[in-house]
Amino acid sequence: MKINIKPIGIIHTPYKKPHDVPLQAYKSKKKGRVTVYREFAEGLADIDGFSYIIIIFYFHKAHGYKLKAIPYRDNVPRGIFAIKGPWRPNHIGVTTVRLLKRIGRELIIKGMDIVDGSPLLDIKPYVPPFDERTNAKIGWLEGKIKR
Amino acid sequence: MKINIKPIGIIHTPYKKPHDVPLQAYKSKKKGRVTVYREFAEGLADIDGFSYIIIIFYFHKAHGYKLKAIPYRDNVPRGIFAIKGPWRPNHIGVTTVRLLKRIGRELIIKGMDIVDGSPLLDIKPYVPPFDERTNAKIGWLEGKIKR
Repeated sequence: MKINIKPIGIIHTPYKKPHDVPLQAYKSKKKGRVTVYREFAEGLADIDGFSYIIIIFYFHKAHGYKLKAIPYRDNVPRGIFAIKGPWRPNHIGVTTVRLLKRIGRELIIKGMDIVDGSPLLDIKPYVPPFDERTNAKIGWLEGKIKR
Repeated sequence: MKINIKPIGIIHTPYKKPHDVPLQAYKSKKKGRVTVYREFAEGLADIDGFSYIIIIFYFHKAHGYKLKAIPYRDNVPRGIFAIKGPWRPNHIGVTTVRLLKRIGRELIIKGMDIVDGSPLLDIKPYVPPFDERTNAKIGWLEGKIKR
């Protein structure tokens, strides 16, 4: 099956390289800017009402992939599908960010773990009943991250 | 920029057509099965410890896109980026599901809003500090969905 995916915008952040992104970027006050290409701008209608949006983007700095990799919070290799790093078979990033403001076809966001210049692939609204789970076990991350 | 995305597996569910998927699929007890292609199976290591996983898949039944569409819970057109429907510029679906069991390179899941036969693009662990947000405003969906 042919998968046809194209950039629909671009994301600007203060993080120029992957290593500039803080481990808990969602706690950072640093702001970013999502610019949706003119041809898709009409799709931003009604987004202003949401506190959070889910950004789907392309890890444009990742080359190739690993099936196991050592994540930032550990020192043993873990399966790539059990970690969030960019070295995945498909270089797709998914992250939930705070939507601060919309200015035309630009969205001002906060808390993104996204490298500057990343191609935007999609935006979805964050809707708690669908996207929020409580009492989730977190495998190898248990004890390594503040809950 | 060339975006290179390929299927890494296939998802089987009881939902044969888009309209078979219940509105609140995450509440359903129906089970699905994610099969990761052999070449990527090693990447499933360590996934067993997570209660929930985020499935990234391809809306293989969607053709073309709309910038505004009438969502299931409303009767006025909304911006495509403010709704979760499949008629998006890029046909990428993102959904959080319960991981019940792993059997080799197969994952038994529950609560998926995925049509049978959807190509799998990625799997990520659901990690509350990163993926969970409380007190989220939900725009046009306010009052239309039980929280």
